[in-house]
Amino acid sequence: MEFTLIDRIRERTAQGRDDVRLGIGDDAALLAVPAGQELAVAIDTLVEGVHFPIGTAAVDIGWKSLAVNLSDLAAMGATPAWALLALTLPSADAALIDGLANGFAQLAQAYRLALVGGDTTRGAFTISVAVHGFVPPGKALRRSGAQVGDAVLVTGTLGDAAAGLQLVQKGANADARSAFLIERLNRPTPRVAAGLALREHASACIDISDGLLADLGHLCTASNVGAEIETSLLPRSSALLDLFDENVARDFALSGGDDYELCFTVPAQHVATVQADLARLGCGATKIGRIVEGGGVGVRDADGRWLEPARNGWDHFGA
Amino acid sequence: MEFTLIDRIRERTAQGRDDVRLGIGDDAALLAVPAGQELAVAIDTLVEGVHFPIGTAAVDIGWKSLAVNLSDLAAMGATPAWALLALTLPSADAALIDGLANGFAQLAQAYRLALVGGDTTRGAFTISVAVHGFVPPGKALRRSGAQVGDAVLVTGTLGDAAAGLQLVQKGANADARSAFLIERLNRPTPRVAAGLALREHASACIDISDGLLADLGHLCTASNVGAEIETSLLPRSSALLDLFDENVARDFALSGGDDYELCFTVPAQHVATVQADLARLGCGATKIGRIVEGGGVGVRDADGRWLEPARNGWDHFGA
Repeated sequence: MEFTLIDRIRERTAQGRDDVRLGIGDDAALLAVPAGQELAVAIDTLVEGVHFPIGTAAVDIGWKSLAVNLSDLAAMGATPAWALLALTLPSADAALIDGLANGFAQLAQAYRLALVGGDTTRGAFTISVAVHGFVPPGKALRRSGAQVGDAVLVTGTLGDAAAGLQLVQKGANADARSAFLIERLNRPTPRVAAGLALREHASACIDISDGLLADLGHLCTASNVGAEIETSLLPRSSALLDLFDENVARDFALSGGDDYELCFTVPAQHVATVQADLARLGCGATKIGRIVEGGGVGVRDADGRWLEPARNGWDHFGA
Repeated sequence: MEFTLIDRIRERTAQGRDDVRLGIGDDAALLAVPAGQELAVAIDTLVEGVHFPIGTAAVDIGWKSLAVNLSDLAAMGATPAWALLALTLPSADAALIDGLANGFAQLAQAYRLALVGGDTTRGAFTISVAVHGFVPPGKALRRSGAQVGDAVLVTGTLGDAAAGLQLVQKGANADARSAFLIERLNRPTPRVAAGLALREHASACIDISDGLLADLGHLCTASNVGAEIETSLLPRSSALLDLFDENVARDFALSGGDDYELCFTVPAQHVATVQADLARLGCGATKIGRIVEGGGVGVRDADGRWLEPARNGWDHFGA
């Protein structure tokens, strides 16, 4: 089955990349990785009703399907190059397909990314995207390099996407602050330029898709270290703080998924340099804690008390 | 969500490839394309009830999800190297996951292919696989090189998978011939070695996924030529000929999908060489027609009469 989606995106994305030796239209694409570069590859799937609410605009779904994958490349410090797209749809809905193509192409254009292959099939609404990027050998950011004493930082603000999801579910989207938070859910900004800049000094990096604590936990496990973070340091948007109670906003920032910010570690002496480097790219970077011996992620509140996970968020230890 | 599928396949597939610099477990894999090779990439999705009948054994689905992609690499004359897998399942069914992993890994092992990335999500049963292979610059088989006067050949036998599908739908699978045809549907053999051998003399190549006439039609369009084939030359298995009437067997061979044989063109003076080369690989190659000027695919029966598509298959022109 041919939805024309692939052709529509192809028309709107990079045509002039000389590393694409043969694009869409044969049994496979033929691609040339530049000399002296390794290939970073990742694949992620979005399922309707799981990864985006039913009713999400098609243009946002198209954007997000690529954004979550570019976020993986950002977390490796890789430069995006090519993508493959597998779309399954119940029917050939022209407006939906056009919206998906527009959203995907908007983000692809920002990186001169070429769509080099695709498949369209009939079934429940699912989008899988595979991305390919370049990184010099030995220069990729990994989850496994954090050292005891390193600072833990995050880009941007945390918890916005979880707040946006709650607003969508409540049908509350009339005001500008709600719209901002919902935009953060629907059109995440992959931190590609920040990831490239972090190759210089970061010791480890991961993108925040499942929530800060879960993803920082993955980084700690891979690095065989622990981390301590302080809730008073968590960067949060004014929209989040205006619309939600402090405890809710804190829990969104700690555990909410879908922010697609980067969480990374930096030797203490390089923190200011890294913050300045990212600021020049328009990307805030906030120190939220430090790497310690042991394992797991400890969370302290503004009074220095330890928090622990509870049924509806995070509570004071023993409370 | 983690189905453990990715880990199960990883355990069972190539671990020792030195072109995999960083495998599964970080935000992206890091891969090194060998010097002097281009990358061939393709992606294909299987949807339950569309690309395999409901009730198909999990081990066969796992196999087929990779086989249809390796068939694309075969059609380009590329050597398989790496795969990404995106699986969506309604629930974490342990037996199903184990079967999928076994089937995928069985075929992957045959090519020392490494699974380098994956994503598992909850939703309707869908599998997307992306494959990566290597091919020297300028050596890939394309659809676009067929020349007037070239012979048209196919590997193996045609129509078996369509016959197998009909047998599954009828619930007829008790005898050895039915089992053979159903096996051809469920566990197609990608013609990887044949594709590599064809780089020497073939002028164009495509794999037969949608049926001979459709796919040869794609090849003719890409090459800006036409083709004439003769039904008396179509290679068909004895199981197909034993279990189905001549007209049905002919129609399956002309229009049935899912055979994953290669259809290719060769300058007339190289046909015997190519047939001998493929025979040494255990792969039959049969001349079924020739490339002509114009466009489209003409079909002649044993008496030299032209056939045309009819509602239930192919009929004599004007009949």
